[in-house]
Amino acid sequence: MVHLDDLTRKEFKEAVAAGKPVILPIGATEAHGDHLPLSTDSLQPEYIAERLAEKCDAIIAPPIRYGVCNALRCFPGTISLSFDTMRALILDVLSELVRNGFGKIVVLSGHAGRDHMVALRLAARTIVKEKDVKIMVLSDYNIIYDKKIEEIDWEDGHGGTMETSRVMAIRPELVHKERAKPSFPKYPKYMEIKDFRKYIPEGYRGDPTKATKEFGDKLNDIIIEEMVKLIGAM
Amino acid sequence: MVHLDDLTRKEFKEAVAAGKPVILPIGATEAHGDHLPLSTDSLQPEYIAERLAEKCDAIIAPPIRYGVCNALRCFPGTISLSFDTMRALILDVLSELVRNGFGKIVVLSGHAGRDHMVALRLAARTIVKEKDVKIMVLSDYNIIYDKKIEEIDWEDGHGGTMETSRVMAIRPELVHKERAKPSFPKYPKYMEIKDFRKYIPEGYRGDPTKATKEFGDKLNDIIIEEMVKLIGAM
Amino acid sequence: MVHLDDLTRKEFKEAVAAGKPVILPIGATEAHGDHLPLSTDSLQPEYIAERLAEKCDAIIAPPIRYGVCNALRCFPGTISLSFDTMRALILDVLSELVRNGFGKIVVLSGHAGRDHMVALRLAARTIVKEKDVKIMVLSDYNIIYDKKIEEIDWEDGHGGTMETSRVMAIRPELVHKERAKPSFPKYPKYMEIKDFRKYIPEGYRGDPTKATKEFGDKLNDIIIEEMVKLIGAM
Amino acid sequence: MVHLDDLTRKEFKEAVAAGKPVILPIGATEAHGDHLPLSTDSLQPEYIAERLAEKCDAIIAPPIRYGVCNALRCFPGTISLSFDTMRALILDVLSELVRNGFGKIVVLSGHAGRDHMVALRLAARTIVKEKDVKIMVLSDYNIIYDKKIEEIDWEDGHGGTMETSRVMAIRPELVHKERAKPSFPKYPKYMEIKDFRKYIPEGYRGDPTKATKEFGDKLNDIIIEEMVKLIGAM
Amino acid sequence: MVHLDDLTRKEFKEAVAAGKPVILPIGATEAHGDHLPLSTDSLQPEYIAERLAEKCDAIIAPPIRYGVCNALRCFPGTISLSFDTMRALILDVLSELVRNGFGKIVVLSGHAGRDHMVALRLAARTIVKEKDVKIMVLSDYNIIYDKKIEEIDWEDGHGGTMETSRVMAIRPELVHKERAKPSFPKYPKYMEIKDFRKYIPEGYRGDPTKATKEFGDKLNDIIIEEMVKLIGAM
Amino acid sequence: MVHLDDLTRKEFKEAVAAGKPVILPIGATEAHGDHLPLSTDSLQPEYIAERLAEKCDAIIAPPIRYGVCNALRCFPGTISLSFDTMRALILDVLSELVRNGFGKIVVLSGHAGRDHMVALRLAARTIVKEKDVKIMVLSDYNIIYDKKIEEIDWEDGHGGTMETSRVMAIRPELVHKERAKPSFPKYPKYMEIKDFRKYIPEGYRGDPTKATKEFGDKLNDIIIEEMVKLIGAM
Repeated sequence: MVHLDDLTRKEFKEAVAAGKPVILPIGATEAHGDHLPLSTDSLQPEYIAERLAEKCDAIIAPPIRYGVCNALRCFPGTISLSFDTMRALILDVLSELVRNGFGKIVVLSGHAGRDHMVALRLAARTIVKEKDVKIMVLSDYNIIYDKKIEEIDWEDGHGGTMETSRVMAIRPELVHKERAKPSFPKYPKYMEIKDFRKYIPEGYRGDPTKATKEFGDKLNDIIIEEMVKLIGAM
Repeated sequence: MVHLDDLTRKEFKEAVAAGKPVILPIGATEAHGDHLPLSTDSLQPEYIAERLAEKCDAIIAPPIRYGVCNALRCFPGTISLSFDTMRALILDVLSELVRNGFGKIVVLSGHAGRDHMVALRLAARTIVKEKDVKIMVLSDYNIIYDKKIEEIDWEDGHGGTMETSRVMAIRPELVHKERAKPSFPKYPKYMEIKDFRKYIPEGYRGDPTKATKEFGDKLNDIIIEEMVKLIGAM
Repeated sequence: MVHLDDLTRKEFKEAVAAGKPVILPIGATEAHGDHLPLSTDSLQPEYIAERLAEKCDAIIAPPIRYGVCNALRCFPGTISLSFDTMRALILDVLSELVRNGFGKIVVLSGHAGRDHMVALRLAARTIVKEKDVKIMVLSDYNIIYDKKIEEIDWEDGHGGTMETSRVMAIRPELVHKERAKPSFPKYPKYMEIKDFRKYIPEGYRGDPTKATKEFGDKLNDIIIEEMVKLIGAM
Repeated sequence: MVHLDDLTRKEFKEAVAAGKPVILPIGATEAHGDHLPLSTDSLQPEYIAERLAEKCDAIIAPPIRYGVCNALRCFPGTISLSFDTMRALILDVLSELVRNGFGKIVVLSGHAGRDHMVALRLAARTIVKEKDVKIMVLSDYNIIYDKKIEEIDWEDGHGGTMETSRVMAIRPELVHKERAKPSFPKYPKYMEIKDFRKYIPEGYRGDPTKATKEFGDKLNDIIIEEMVKLIGAM
Repeated sequence: MVHLDDLTRKEFKEAVAAGKPVILPIGATEAHGDHLPLSTDSLQPEYIAERLAEKCDAIIAPPIRYGVCNALRCFPGTISLSFDTMRALILDVLSELVRNGFGKIVVLSGHAGRDHMVALRLAARTIVKEKDVKIMVLSDYNIIYDKKIEEIDWEDGHGGTMETSRVMAIRPELVHKERAKPSFPKYPKYMEIKDFRKYIPEGYRGDPTKATKEFGDKLNDIIIEEMVKLIGAM
Repeated sequence: MVHLDDLTRKEFKEAVAAGKPVILPIGATEAHGDHLPLSTDSLQPEYIAERLAEKCDAIIAPPIRYGVCNALRCFPGTISLSFDTMRALILDVLSELVRNGFGKIVVLSGHAGRDHMVALRLAARTIVKEKDVKIMVLSDYNIIYDKKIEEIDWEDGHGGTMETSRVMAIRPELVHKERAKPSFPKYPKYMEIKDFRKYIPEGYRGDPTKATKEFGDKLNDIIIEEMVKLIGAM
């Protein structure tokens, strides 16, 4: 019983009274090449949340599978929210969790777009400034990048070796590794881009052909290990 | 492969090209007494959508498990969006589905609150006025009420015989029928109510003790049969 | 002296001190076929308010003759407010009435469109949640429909027998019954409609040819009798 | 038949086709001392509009009796809209008049508050920048002040000799001249004031004791004469 | 050290503790014919603020060189903010000055457009209604017009004798008096204008050829003398 | 003549016709310890813009000295705009520059806060999606960090060695190096912080005692050299 909305009102009250942390998984519906599902950014935090819930006695708020997607919005399958809608949505959900009595909330996003993350953070900050609660906002990739894991190619990104590996570890039947090839697109620094298809024709960055389930498991384990510490420190 | 975000970009393009209808299930995280899970309004349209997707060759957009809850917001476990957030969220999702090329969309809500439904409809209408697409917005309870099914007690409502029966047919392990008793609360007509707990102390309306899996199956079948016709007529 | 703005500041203070209820009549400027004036939805609640004011020692806030019109907006003569404008307008007026000390307010709408009513209710609810006041929001047709009056044809609606009869009782010189004929249009259930003219070519629903002043008087009396009770119970 | 909403759809279409100008009277519900009704700013433009409609073959849109009141908001009886609500309301009404085909609109305000007038003008400007229509926005006091009428005391203002005289000419039964005395309050220039009661204890400016019906008639005639020219020149 | 942002945190705290008034100069980037720089409305209040800061021991908040420009927006070089942006900007800056402890603020605008001034005033009023602080909002031209200086031609306005003279006194190298000629354009009273170029072809009003540095100095001195009194009286 | 608003309308038109790039310097009014002025983030991009304007034949739009400050908002002297105000302000200014005919715009921010930069980027993106223009958005520190300059301590940040050095090179009289000491505060990763004073008591990060004018000149030169290339490549 780790999903908040599997609970009845009665059990919900007990979970609040027990001071359990809540994890709110945020995903996106976003094109990740022809080799990864549109749910790539949703699957990862939901999987992490499931495993964390057991380890940390946390409960999982109903996941949100829509995010703010900028660069990849030009590719088929991306269903992006506007910045303002995302911020309002997260603000409402966080406000209501806090109104219901939760005091420790982890907003865990599988999508790490800069605007997307700021939308989440502005929502969280609004709550934190007004209420005496603890809110953490992070992408699971923040942890990967902050750890200096040596086998990571720092050019690897959206839909690359790491993401493909992790989805292979989580939902292998949704991965079409055979359709991918290495792709390391470049685009002009600091410029706002009208249409990214001009610069990122394949729609991903990195080398999915190097992806393995084992590497995915390793990355997932690193994230979970670190997040157990972070939640413990709240 | 009926879930939109299980698809990769490639399969998504094919689904669009095939002119498939999209079903967007809308739920809520809302207290339904101590006998039903907070996900009651989410489970029902998601279940209907799964079965419809097979029958109508439709695909299912990532479900939304948050809605606009007014009366029951005062009870533990209700996580309500504001009217404006809900409208903006649905407007963004519908706009993006249409931008991606879908022309037939069914917004199917398990929650039937008056404000909630108007938020969905205003979003849909904005799209329909501007684009040449077809959007249907309904709660599955609209069908139940429009059909004049004789065994229905018209006093039955939120968390009553019908809802309890349907959840028993869908996720029986989440139902605690033994905790419920008949409850037919009254509140002053036409008045805006500050706190519904004064008038609806149990947080539901109807007689959950009469609920059966068989009646739930029957209601689900009626809804599906009718919706197959409605989607066919789009 | 039943109109709020016929009062001077001095008499206004006395009315507040006396705890008088305030009635805010809301109308619409909306096409009602060629047989009824655009003010049809304004005349009815203003007439009811006048008669109620005497019977209940209430005062009448300056009426608003603009509403949110969806289906009929496509016909000449409809001057519709947007949902957000309507909600903001009513919120401002209600806030100011409450700020001035009134504690019982009846928002009485002649127009009963679903969005329109939700706009009024959201405004009222915002106030009720924050202040210790009583606000009732209803269309006078709510009463008609909640009473099970037997001579009413339930297919009758906008601009039909009932509305025509009531305007004949209130402002007969504005009714052109001779221009009307029965019209019972149908449109696809649950669909958001781009242009209602396709489905409601005459712009009304019902049989205005059956309308009589006597039936209008009867309906008006029923509404007044019921509202006297409702205001008394506040 | 000069009131827009006395028309049916049929006659409305004819009025549009005839190219008639529309006058939209804007009032306010605002304290004007103990000697003038709260409707003072509504009565004046509605009266002018009635007489202009005959002289200019114009039609009158449903009047709005709420305005943006700043200084006098602190006195009992003032029901003020916010700046944003006022602007949105007028923008919606003007947009709809233009969408219906009207090309000449006069927004005539009895209230002349600076913010109030800017709210009206911003709404009108938005339309004029986008559509090929003519919109005039004025307070009837703009005309009085622009004409250099010699018997006017330039210290006279809100609720003073002029306003009292005009209401005596329009609705004499609502005037309580005997309650008034001269009042020429002063307040610090350019400062934003927290509470005007400190500086304007009586709630008006000028000498109502000098008011006469004859002077009111004269002012009304001057306004009408000038506005006939202005509307002719559109 | 009269500029607020020349201070470090330490000196800033001392300025607040000393109860110093703050002057916030507001300009505009607006076409003023071919003879005056686009900064004309910025230079004037910034110059006045510099001189006032010395005389009144005030400090100057970072000037804003963007304003709300309506009529002149059609001419090259005008960079106008929308009304809502201006109001929000000034509201934020004033809120933050007050949050930091300042209690006397002068918003001094070189641009005197009606909408622009109302945007500033609405922002200031919002603060004043909530906090116990003093805020003055004025254009330096308010002072000129309120003083009845006899050598002023009352037809003179935007870019005319007065403005040209004042810029000659402040930044003579930016003035091209030789390019100007008298221009006294007329436009229809009370009408909202689609494109002012039709009525104000030169883009200014008045006779810049009569401008002199001496007259500019005189006007500047009058403004400063009066503002020293106004600030003293706060 | 590199400042846009030093130009008259005539010269402005010529600058547009010449296809000159525009640089919009964005600063902040923000506490930077007791050793640096509140204008630290304004001085740097304005200085860079001045030097770039000469080298690239660019013109400088009126600088904005207010930004979105989060962490340092708790310290005296920080005057922060909200995210929405900043975005609206930059959107208006960029829209107007584009409406006036400019096609290459560099938004150069001295403040590099994450939210602040996203506000600028969202504004720029809105324009770029709609119009065929080129807009670059960067903080001059982006260049510093993207270059891997070896003498930089990567723990150095807000108000540290680099910023102190650069202000020493630009406005030495505003620097109080003697007041500073090394400060390398830490705060919990990923958490939204209610009050940063708890974690950053000194209000800066780095070692200002190591700052020198020479290092400041070097950093400025590096930025300018790189930006000349970037602007050339537009």
